[in-house]
Amino acid sequence: MEQDSRLAGTVRPGGRTARVRAAVLEAAQDELVLHGFHGLTMDAVAARAGVGKTTVYRRWTGTAGLVADLMTELADQSAAHANTGTIEEDLRANALGVLNAITDQRLGPTLQAVIAAATCDDEAAAALSAFYDRRIREWAKSIDLAVRRGELPEGTDGEEVIRAISAPLYYRLLVTREPVDKETAERSVARALVAARNGAFVE
Amino acid sequence: MEQDSRLAGTVRPGGRTARVRAAVLEAAQDELVLHGFHGLTMDAVAARAGVGKTTVYRRWTGTAGLVADLMTELADQSAAHANTGTIEEDLRANALGVLNAITDQRLGPTLQAVIAAATCDDEAAAALSAFYDRRIREWAKSIDLAVRRGELPEGTDGEEVIRAISAPLYYRLLVTREPVDKETAERSVARALVAARNGAFVE
Repeated sequence: MEQDSRLAGTVRPGGRTARVRAAVLEAAQDELVLHGFHGLTMDAVAARAGVGKTTVYRRWTGTAGLVADLMTELADQSAAHANTGTIEEDLRANALGVLNAITDQRLGPTLQAVIAAATCDDEAAAALSAFYDRRIREWAKSIDLAVRRGELPEGTDGEEVIRAISAPLYYRLLVTREPVDKETAERSVARALVAARNGAFVE
Repeated sequence: MEQDSRLAGTVRPGGRTARVRAAVLEAAQDELVLHGFHGLTMDAVAARAGVGKTTVYRRWTGTAGLVADLMTELADQSAAHANTGTIEEDLRANALGVLNAITDQRLGPTLQAVIAAATCDDEAAAALSAFYDRRIREWAKSIDLAVRRGELPEGTDGEEVIRAISAPLYYRLLVTREPVDKETAERSVARALVAARNGAFVE
């Protein structure tokens, strides 16, 4: 523990500090998937990560802080926007990426746990919001490119188009609890694209 | 308690059984709003409703059963679909109804608590799903009327149009945690309508 204290924040990226963070965040994600946000404890995360409790308590203020850091890490790992040359293909890649994320056996329950936590925890809500804000701004670039290519009307709000593609998938996942599949994703793209081409996303 | 047992299920609607159910469901909703699904206990509901614990335990198998009954009651109380004569106005009424529901100080947190519960409880998920299935089927009738009036293409999937109007509101509420207001609702209607008129909801 003395050694941890001395090293914390002082080693190079990829060194012990980075390894501890990776192990703790992976353990936090495991615990979140298994027990949800209400079942997440600092002690269980430390035990699963194989690090001392004081290391975890020193670096993260609490479980909401752990979740916030996990969401930052997941955003860092997320794919950059597609740039296939056509807006259909870019948006299709976006929708299938969202589908893959929410149906992934690990990432799907992670996102659902944080979404559930956000309904009653402001820190979790802020972490969730920051995660999706980054994803939406990243993918909105595909729309900006399409506008420049003349595929979509000038003034199209790219962020709103990206939200419109994700929304029906999350609505089924979280609200109506209906199946979300490739057809759902492709319909979402087709509908958003018709609306976008007809200027419904021009602000 | 003996008297409760004798009366349970045998009195006329509006009688003691109905009054007990109303008091218990109102107490369950209060507790859900205050403490979320994880903080919901049968004992606290009984105490708040001013009824004996055994009455609650006899009638509802557990907190998920209470939530399921509450959702049935909320669906029973929900408004029938609009029939203003134009699809714009009907869909506007739908979107503003959804907005009012999710921003209502009591109903909003209730729905969010059940949505959060549904991420980790199958009974809560089934109750949520049944609630929205009823709401979607009810409001899809507005689309069917519009198709009959010739406002929308033959074969338009009314349930999908209704989902498409709600989805952006719930996506902001639950996922991106962005503000949901009248403008969000009206944009959602405008976009779904453009897509619907262009046949994007024809199956």
